[in-house]
Amino acid sequence: MSVVLLTGAERILLGGPAWEEASGDLLIRDGSIQAVGGDLAARAPGARVVDASGLTLMPGLVQTHVHLCQTLFRGLAEDRSLLPWLRECIWPLEAAHDPDSLRASVELSILELLLGGTTTILDMGTTHHHGVVFETLERTGLRAASGKAMMDEGEGVPVGLLETTLDSLRESFDLAERWDGAADGRLRYAFAPRFVLSCSDILFREVVSLAKDRYLLHTHASENSNETDVVERLKGRRNIEYFEDVGFLGPRTLLAHCVWLSDREVECLATSGSRALHCPHTNLKLGSGICEVGRLRDAGVHVSIGCDGAPANNGLDGFAEMRAAARLAQLKSGPGSLTAPDVLTMATLGGAEALGWDDRIGRLEPGKDADVIAVDLHTPHATPVADPLTALVYSCRAGDVRHVLVSGEVLVESGQAVRMDAPAIVREAEKQAQRARERAAPEVPRLRPGAVS
Amino acid sequence: MSVVLLTGAERILLGGPAWEEASGDLLIRDGSIQAVGGDLAARAPGARVVDASGLTLMPGLVQTHVHLCQTLFRGLAEDRSLLPWLRECIWPLEAAHDPDSLRASVELSILELLLGGTTTILDMGTTHHHGVVFETLERTGLRAASGKAMMDEGEGVPVGLLETTLDSLRESFDLAERWDGAADGRLRYAFAPRFVLSCSDILFREVVSLAKDRYLLHTHASENSNETDVVERLKGRRNIEYFEDVGFLGPRTLLAHCVWLSDREVECLATSGSRALHCPHTNLKLGSGICEVGRLRDAGVHVSIGCDGAPANNGLDGFAEMRAAARLAQLKSGPGSLTAPDVLTMATLGGAEALGWDDRIGRLEPGKDADVIAVDLHTPHATPVADPLTALVYSCRAGDVRHVLVSGEVLVESGQAVRMDAPAIVREAEKQAQRARERAAPEVPRLRPGAVS
Repeated sequence: MSVVLLTGAERILLGGPAWEEASGDLLIRDGSIQAVGGDLAARAPGARVVDASGLTLMPGLVQTHVHLCQTLFRGLAEDRSLLPWLRECIWPLEAAHDPDSLRASVELSILELLLGGTTTILDMGTTHHHGVVFETLERTGLRAASGKAMMDEGEGVPVGLLETTLDSLRESFDLAERWDGAADGRLRYAFAPRFVLSCSDILFREVVSLAKDRYLLHTHASENSNETDVVERLKGRRNIEYFEDVGFLGPRTLLAHCVWLSDREVECLATSGSRALHCPHTNLKLGSGICEVGRLRDAGVHVSIGCDGAPANNGLDGFAEMRAAARLAQLKSGPGSLTAPDVLTMATLGGAEALGWDDRIGRLEPGKDADVIAVDLHTPHATPVADPLTALVYSCRAGDVRHVLVSGEVLVESGQAVRMDAPAIVREAEKQAQRARERAAPEVPRLRPGAVS
Repeated sequence: MSVVLLTGAERILLGGPAWEEASGDLLIRDGSIQAVGGDLAARAPGARVVDASGLTLMPGLVQTHVHLCQTLFRGLAEDRSLLPWLRECIWPLEAAHDPDSLRASVELSILELLLGGTTTILDMGTTHHHGVVFETLERTGLRAASGKAMMDEGEGVPVGLLETTLDSLRESFDLAERWDGAADGRLRYAFAPRFVLSCSDILFREVVSLAKDRYLLHTHASENSNETDVVERLKGRRNIEYFEDVGFLGPRTLLAHCVWLSDREVECLATSGSRALHCPHTNLKLGSGICEVGRLRDAGVHVSIGCDGAPANNGLDGFAEMRAAARLAQLKSGPGSLTAPDVLTMATLGGAEALGWDDRIGRLEPGKDADVIAVDLHTPHATPVADPLTALVYSCRAGDVRHVLVSGEVLVESGQAVRMDAPAIVREAEKQAQRARERAAPEVPRLRPGAVS
């Protein structure tokens, strides 16, 4: 039986939406939170003790749209809008992955995510080698739903990523059977037809028919106006209307971006209970637009937050992404339209809800899995702390995260990764990135970063 | 004679616009750069040696719009647009400053700025006690142009900030005489009529008549559309046209924000050589808008970057601000419209040019003052480094800054402030913030952060 005691926290924020506050110790037994607040030492003889004095405990960040496989390509797809970014850079680079480069990308991503206080993600993979992603997730301790990208047609899809409809389905189901519920339920499978422009009608329909009842469905939608124009031309309907027609929408359907939506599409999302995944930094950098979070939430659409891929973001910093969502909401809907507690809830409990995981994570309360982070707010850049929620949203940096636990496992302690060898991972990532770039070079005519398409 | 040798840098980026690259040592004598690159140990017997192995050297960041006096009010003015933000929160809080709270605010700001790699700022103060700001700048080593805010009229200006036109001018000139050129030229005075809505015509005209030939002029302009509407109603002209008419424009005139400009106003800025100061995060959070940097630059207007005040930003992180400028430019003018080298130049040499300081700082070359920062790019969140300029703009964090020198003085070494006692400054800031809030409380009915105006 494993017992962990976080001791002496200045403040324990239980989580959204109310953000009740306690202080003192937090007791974890066999991965679950057993008690919160006060002096719990007497109830925890022999516990592994982690000193949280002076720190603020809160639920770990949940990012609902990430591409672990792309982190190795950070800085290699600059200055492009979505479709050229995919066709000229990202797809040829993904096609160049081998299991070693993919593993290096995933390890580097998980290291960055954990060090920055993200404890759960929804990941979209590349087409091949996706077992490597789950093996690495299992070994490193991050909580994740993940699935291989499905790509059975589409302009510009390279041979190295293109698969038959049958292979795409078969490989997805093989992975789902192997990994959904693995690691005591810490890993789950999410079917991931990449987006309308890389998947056949029959693929979408088969995913709906075969997977929708049992698994999460994860795709991209309405990110860029060029993309939505092409979708409308090819399908004769708008993106979300197409999803509605093929039966793809529903409360277990997660749609990244949702920037370009008609009122009718917003209504489709709301009535179906589909989830919008907001990726503000990517949407800015690829020049796509700004997701109207206020409009979506007012219509009853559930919105959570993710960093998307490192070649667009260019990082996986959940605090920075939450802050971007907060600032852009003030711009689009007016100051105060999304408060600090609102956005902090979106980035924690909201992400858990989107993934159907709010029975296990998203709040610090007895019985929940112990996904906890400890943050130092006594830094020059967060002082004075007039209100801890405002400080966490607008001033706190990824580097202020001191401890990170997932299912009660201490994965980061005093700002250092516990299970992962950070310098070795950084070195291996540089080496594998170089090799992957060389393999991709014939396909990517101008791999010089900064070259404008 | 003081000699400092930065040794073994993996990379020395000389600065914009070309960002030439060297490696090895950087030799500093009496505050000036003497030699760059290669092995310089033989030329530096007895030097103070700072280990830069594995690090990237570059010119320090220059932020051209900051309010040191406001950092103590971080988190205390949430969820408001510009004019309520000023009238309900910021002005009453500034009026509550005493010399001790102002000193605490300035020390906290300088600590955050230096730790994050900002070596030069243009600061706008509050109305009173501004000598404290210069004394603190002198003692701590940051390079700065600064001036007290001038406020001789205006709706909502509290008694505690309002001054007569004559007092405003007299106090400004007293400060300018005492501090312009002080600390071996590291400090300069910038006249700072706050903005049109807090200054009389006669004040602007007197500043032009008495100060424009000798000093920088610093103000806010066209930040928010409510503000520009009021300006147009009061003055019968648009904001920049008013400045043109009173003679306020020119190459030593620095205008923060410049979000809401007619084509005619953009032309006025370009032909007069006036400088636009871009504060992207503040403009988002106060819901003001997005400065059209591409449009301004295309018209020939010089644009540099600043974090503005901590109660709007909510921090003073020059790397995050540069990144915001880069991302928002891609959104407004398309991917590639502002490249990584472009924005890195804006944040260094560009800031120096705006301040008329490009003869002394902004590039690492012999004869220039040694304002140098050393950054670690071998972090999980910046790996792989496909291109160092892209990594610095889009992935590097304030916390990756290891060493910071201003005029050859080592102010940050291995991530720690050298001259400043960081924990003591953080403690004092909390204490003084509490006292200032109590003094301001009668004036600020809802000092609870998060309360919507």
